[in-house]
Amino acid sequence: MSVKNNKISTRKDDYSQWYLDVIEAADLAEYGPVKGTMVIKPYGYAIWENIQSILNAKIKETGHKNAYFPLLIPKSFFNKEASHVDGFAKECAVVTHYRLKNNNKGEIVVDPEAKLEEELIIRPTSETIINHSFSQWINSWRDLPVLINQWANVLRWEMRTRPFLRTSEFLWQEGHTAHATEIEAEQEAEKMLGVYNDFVRDYLAMSVVAGKKSESEKFAGAKHTYTIEAMMQDGKALQSATSHNLGQNFAKAFDIQFLDKENKKQYVWQTSWGMSTRIIGGLIMTHSDDSGLVLPPNIAPIKVVLIPILNGSDTDQNVLKMVKKIKDILKLKDHLEVDDRDNLSMGMKFNIWEKKGVPIRLELGAKELEKGSVVLARRDTKDKILVNIDNLAKVIKDTLEDMQNELSKKSEQNRIKNTKIVNNWEDFKKAIESEKFVLAHWSGEASVEAKIKKETGATIRCLPFDQKKENGKCVYSGKASEQRVLFAKAY
Amino acid sequence: MSVKNNKISTRKDDYSQWYLDVIEAADLAEYGPVKGTMVIKPYGYAIWENIQSILNAKIKETGHKNAYFPLLIPKSFFNKEASHVDGFAKECAVVTHYRLKNNNKGEIVVDPEAKLEEELIIRPTSETIINHSFSQWINSWRDLPVLINQWANVLRWEMRTRPFLRTSEFLWQEGHTAHATEIEAEQEAEKMLGVYNDFVRDYLAMSVVAGKKSESEKFAGAKHTYTIEAMMQDGKALQSATSHNLGQNFAKAFDIQFLDKENKKQYVWQTSWGMSTRIIGGLIMTHSDDSGLVLPPNIAPIKVVLIPILNGSDTDQNVLKMVKKIKDILKLKDHLEVDDRDNLSMGMKFNIWEKKGVPIRLELGAKELEKGSVVLARRDTKDKILVNIDNLAKVIKDTLEDMQNELSKKSEQNRIKNTKIVNNWEDFKKAIESEKFVLAHWSGEASVEAKIKKETGATIRCLPFDQKKENGKCVYSGKASEQRVLFAKAY
Repeated sequence: MSVKNNKISTRKDDYSQWYLDVIEAADLAEYGPVKGTMVIKPYGYAIWENIQSILNAKIKETGHKNAYFPLLIPKSFFNKEASHVDGFAKECAVVTHYRLKNNNKGEIVVDPEAKLEEELIIRPTSETIINHSFSQWINSWRDLPVLINQWANVLRWEMRTRPFLRTSEFLWQEGHTAHATEIEAEQEAEKMLGVYNDFVRDYLAMSVVAGKKSESEKFAGAKHTYTIEAMMQDGKALQSATSHNLGQNFAKAFDIQFLDKENKKQYVWQTSWGMSTRIIGGLIMTHSDDSGLVLPPNIAPIKVVLIPILNGSDTDQNVLKMVKKIKDILKLKDHLEVDDRDNLSMGMKFNIWEKKGVPIRLELGAKELEKGSVVLARRDTKDKILVNIDNLAKVIKDTLEDMQNELSKKSEQNRIKNTKIVNNWEDFKKAIESEKFVLAHWSGEASVEAKIKKETGATIRCLPFDQKKENGKCVYSGKASEQRVLFAKAY
Repeated sequence: MSVKNNKISTRKDDYSQWYLDVIEAADLAEYGPVKGTMVIKPYGYAIWENIQSILNAKIKETGHKNAYFPLLIPKSFFNKEASHVDGFAKECAVVTHYRLKNNNKGEIVVDPEAKLEEELIIRPTSETIINHSFSQWINSWRDLPVLINQWANVLRWEMRTRPFLRTSEFLWQEGHTAHATEIEAEQEAEKMLGVYNDFVRDYLAMSVVAGKKSESEKFAGAKHTYTIEAMMQDGKALQSATSHNLGQNFAKAFDIQFLDKENKKQYVWQTSWGMSTRIIGGLIMTHSDDSGLVLPPNIAPIKVVLIPILNGSDTDQNVLKMVKKIKDILKLKDHLEVDDRDNLSMGMKFNIWEKKGVPIRLELGAKELEKGSVVLARRDTKDKILVNIDNLAKVIKDTLEDMQNELSKKSEQNRIKNTKIVNNWEDFKKAIESEKFVLAHWSGEASVEAKIKKETGATIRCLPFDQKKENGKCVYSGKASEQRVLFAKAY
């Protein structure tokens, strides 16, 4: 494990630099050699593995099976459902050749003779290639529903990148389903948004607003897109996961038909839904502070770090014996790390683990041992208490639970505190400028939405499910509106 | 789950077609739309998930951490360590453009203006890009060893493809490590081959020969390559996993140096090692029979299928009640599948699950219920016995263990029976023609190895670890030889 001594900018001074500093100080990731790419380092990847393992179990519990589809998609597939390409998929990496060779200078060059007849696209998302398979798999109503999930890398060329939040290649899961009826597809899309909502709440301690995307903001191939939007500490929104009701768009493009019970041919109704490594960016920005990363215990790869304080005297042996005993008592397996490195000062160790956001740090030296106790320092509040070793397992369990709850609460309170209900254009602009979530009436017109975006930088994050119908006037156009929608600047 | 009614060719009639038929009948995979690619269907992917989960735990137990490195590698990296490219990596997919656009006919085309300055290569393996990172991570002896593993997709263009065995894109894990000393790297390479060896033996019930590759057959960037070679039922070898001692080749190419304890700069010593979805091809070809797939219980996604036999009478309710009770008793969770579909005959169901290689099939109808029993059919031997429900959990446990052991034994016996020790060229040719493993003396000359390959199609699979030094004469050249090596035709 490498030792970093970099300083972390404060959120107040430079929020954007603070985010990069937290990632570097915690050793989560670094830029790759190709612009827009990222190396996910072991500690960052361990967070992703935890996310995968929990979310994967939830995806399976809801009846989905994992499969794997090819990375490379024939360009012609993009012509079949071109509307979804309009949205984002044009920024795609294109494979044109399939061989390298040595030139006469002994260098490795692309072999011009190995040119592909049809260019291949690295998947920006897999709707086209998966639906190509679905068209072969589905014949009868008995084959439905088809409930598939894939864990994969995808690529969308990005010019302005930021680790986790926006990288060309990223990792995600993408669910793809096909159903016999429209209502089933709608229920599936809503159900999976619920899975995401519960997951980020219960494990990532992130409070989000769930709702429907506006027509302009939805996935271009979808009928409806549902989203959960989290608030970062700077008041900006982060789209944390989306779920699409695709209607019959892809079914018609890829001719996915089934014989229904009356022996009539019908197009299937479909959904897709995904959560990506982007969520790690949201996790970092939701909880971390000016001392570095803060991780909710339910997702932290290391929940407790135990630091023996040795002084070169005879008591060291007793301290190390007790360290071993504590390890046995706590039964935390890989979630407990003992830092007994002999080349680092205590101060450096405290600092390292603080920056890594480990929820609990235990300190044990001769002084503590004499009292049969250990010092327990908590990452979020930075409180330090002396705990009797007999009570340690229980105190740790309670502290981890409490920390998880407190981080959840803090995230929710931050969101509520910084969400403003506004009723006129001046207040709207002020609220957006001060980087807040804004609930305001909107006429429902895409043109108005575009003007608001142009003038303030704010987009409609969603039409929140929890906003009741109420008569109002569009904050921009003054036209009639039935519901407040959520505006914010976004990552 | 779709119902396939395809016939399976016999191994004797057409081994190659048999392999494809088994895959189709078990619904494991199918060809993708791009030549050389494969869709891994849910049942096939479930096998890969089991392999991943077990192997991942073993990789972590031996101290490695997972991380993730970019898919796309700058072409210039391949010039740094060109020797490893010579081996295989020339058959690479090359990305030259990063955008699509609509042309004036409304079609999606590659945007000629979005041409990359430097072409990017889809990783055929990640030595170059990972060692680029290592050169930044490693400074001092305290940073060593670095023990990294990655689960990823890689791509090597293939013209002649076969599902699992040889596909352009495949999934694998690739371990990459850096050490302070040569001996540590050597020990690591050997240790990880041991991990693979134990894994295929204990879970996949595959008997393999472990050994060292000849200079011609080793990974082109390596000092030594170690391998485990399995024998398929047609007598051909399948390289099941490899582990490379890379020496300092990549360290020098990527300038990975550390300050040792004497404060002197040293290049690190490295290894890499991998197992891929190819092993599923080996698993299929080791155990399956003319009725379809046979899966060792320790890797089977579904260990037991329970088929209620209903006849539309009042007793059906009792049968279904007992099915529920058996489910509770067995506690097999997802490893138990109940097939209560009402549109398939019993014969069709038996056939489906047989072709899927599920180790145990249980049949329960009114007749069995009356006796408090259930019929247990075993996939490998096809034996059927009547088991009292009170003993069922124990009998299933024992049967699964026995089946695992028997498949192991069968694999080992097949290998031993079909391995021939030969001492002259005529016998050698005959043995290779009859598709056997051959242990023969070899002069150690690459030219002889090449001639043998040209004349018989056989390659040196490895210099087996278990072959003692003995003086002999090369079966081809008559020159002195110190050890018998393993020759075979290979996949």
